[in-house]
Amino acid sequence: MVFKITLTILKKIKSNLNLITCNRKLKSILMKALYYDGELKLSTNEPKPIPPKGEALIKVLMAGICNTDIEITKGYKGFQGILGHEFVGIVEEINDQNQSLLGKRVVGEINCACGKEDCEFCQKELGRHCPNRTTLGIFGRNGCMAEYIILPIVNLLEVPDSISNEIATLTEPLAAGFEILEQIPFSPDQEVLIVGDGKLGILINHALSTTGAKITHIGKHANKLKLVEGNECQTILLNKMPRKQFEIVVEATGSMSGFQFSIQHTKPRGTVVLKSTIAADQKIDLSSVVVNEITIVGSRCGLFQPALDYLASGVDLSTLITAIYPIEKGVEAFEVAETKGILKVMIEF
Amino acid sequence: MVFKITLTILKKIKSNLNLITCNRKLKSILMKALYYDGELKLSTNEPKPIPPKGEALIKVLMAGICNTDIEITKGYKGFQGILGHEFVGIVEEINDQNQSLLGKRVVGEINCACGKEDCEFCQKELGRHCPNRTTLGIFGRNGCMAEYIILPIVNLLEVPDSISNEIATLTEPLAAGFEILEQIPFSPDQEVLIVGDGKLGILINHALSTTGAKITHIGKHANKLKLVEGNECQTILLNKMPRKQFEIVVEATGSMSGFQFSIQHTKPRGTVVLKSTIAADQKIDLSSVVVNEITIVGSRCGLFQPALDYLASGVDLSTLITAIYPIEKGVEAFEVAETKGILKVMIEF
Repeated sequence: MVFKITLTILKKIKSNLNLITCNRKLKSILMKALYYDGELKLSTNEPKPIPPKGEALIKVLMAGICNTDIEITKGYKGFQGILGHEFVGIVEEINDQNQSLLGKRVVGEINCACGKEDCEFCQKELGRHCPNRTTLGIFGRNGCMAEYIILPIVNLLEVPDSISNEIATLTEPLAAGFEILEQIPFSPDQEVLIVGDGKLGILINHALSTTGAKITHIGKHANKLKLVEGNECQTILLNKMPRKQFEIVVEATGSMSGFQFSIQHTKPRGTVVLKSTIAADQKIDLSSVVVNEITIVGSRCGLFQPALDYLASGVDLSTLITAIYPIEKGVEAFEVAETKGILKVMIEF
Repeated sequence: MVFKITLTILKKIKSNLNLITCNRKLKSILMKALYYDGELKLSTNEPKPIPPKGEALIKVLMAGICNTDIEITKGYKGFQGILGHEFVGIVEEINDQNQSLLGKRVVGEINCACGKEDCEFCQKELGRHCPNRTTLGIFGRNGCMAEYIILPIVNLLEVPDSISNEIATLTEPLAAGFEILEQIPFSPDQEVLIVGDGKLGILINHALSTTGAKITHIGKHANKLKLVEGNECQTILLNKMPRKQFEIVVEATGSMSGFQFSIQHTKPRGTVVLKSTIAADQKIDLSSVVVNEITIVGSRCGLFQPALDYLASGVDLSTLITAIYPIEKGVEAFEVAETKGILKVMIEF
């Protein structure tokens, strides 16, 4: 009887111990994240992701807030989940034979392609247009405003030690600027106008400064235009814009009126690069696109390597960063990022 | 006295004769024309134009009504004057040493460039984008829906005898189709979609049929699509369109919804050719242009020679012509041209 009781008690103790261990495990696989499901909130119980074959688990060090994230919180693309696609982090685990990136500090390209042999885009090395892709924090895949993310190891690039976490987090939006160079040939005698002095416009200025083209940058804010003055370009305030047309105009305003302005300032047979995913269903007059035979080139994500090389060259982009918030103040960080005049806001883990 | 009276009578007779001659002259320098000044009307007292140096006086044989003409009668470009830019005519007078085209049947390119040495567009042989140009019946120059027009002799091309007046009048809109071939490279393996089965879409089909590309033509009207079936292309009615995207999509619908449809059916990194000067200030969602990095190429007037060569090859385009009206019934001709289902309406002199 005594024995029996002891056994029961022991079983109970064991069962309780199991429960405690289980709770501990449960606790360790939950993480903090900025989650959007119609409302932006800080979640403290998001499951830590487990990398499938070919993917890596990355501990996020820093994430950047992009205008696309803000658009998502207004319903863009109908995305629900963890936000964010700009980050730097440390590889903690790799589900692959190739472990070369384990422990390394990395940035990651945001489009995760199928890579299949019958995918015409993957075969053309245009995985960022793969019809079966998921996109970090934008489509079909949780984003990087979380303690941990998973990404295919083919998407990851090691960050040189000379680049700080803040600057490394700018790789993704800077790559979007370098994308223009992959799409359009530039020559030193060309006159190029960049329209918009927000963070995207400024990063585009940096990318285009490597082409030798004659750049004019127009915006509404003298203080923001000041940030590109080191790049040997001419800066003009919007209200002082002369009547002039350019061979190439890069639109980075995020507004239909900015796009219309860009078309107006493009020479016949010239090119407008459209960088902003302008909110749907706005009015525009496209007749001069036809009359002047203007070419409009939609431009989105770029390859990371040229951007990382540019950042490694030691250029100072720290003036682009307005504020860094801890993840716990992520919702507040979004509010700040939406404020007029604010450039890049980052979230630290 | 008798002599004096006789002299007075003779003077009177002479004066009367002069008046008659003058009236006749006055009558002979007035002409019929379709005039728009907020209202479209047949004018019978438009002054016959006098060619300045380098220009020719052309007696118009036939003129075509284009959608742009109809748009002008709704206020497009704010043009007031004699309408029309599609014509064939006989050169009656040339104000130039070079008289080689005198008496010849000609068609004429519609943009009249400055040709100056300091004009970057004229120097690049892009006179149709010359900033100082006038455009026949569209900007700064009376159009061809009149008994006589003037045009620079450099704009004129002799029409081979094998081409009828009706078909020759199609040179201008057909050249607008061939313009696409000057702007974009085509290859035989490329899949091309033409959107819109109006007269412009059909003429574009003819121009693109010379490239060897695999053409699909989509429209709303089985009877119109029938007209291109000789061109080895696939025709599809709009309500039977499969979910498919093309490398090149040519928009020829004249509507923003047709342009939106064209964007939706373009592959990532593909090209939309925008041919319609769509009425201003309509809504559109351009986000997929950015996300899919689509290129939009505005396309307008083309050089006449490739179009004239194609017409001289003996292709039958007569099914495109719905009706021919005498100039006296020009206003009625416009009403017919605006009617749904009508293709090309012409005006005869």
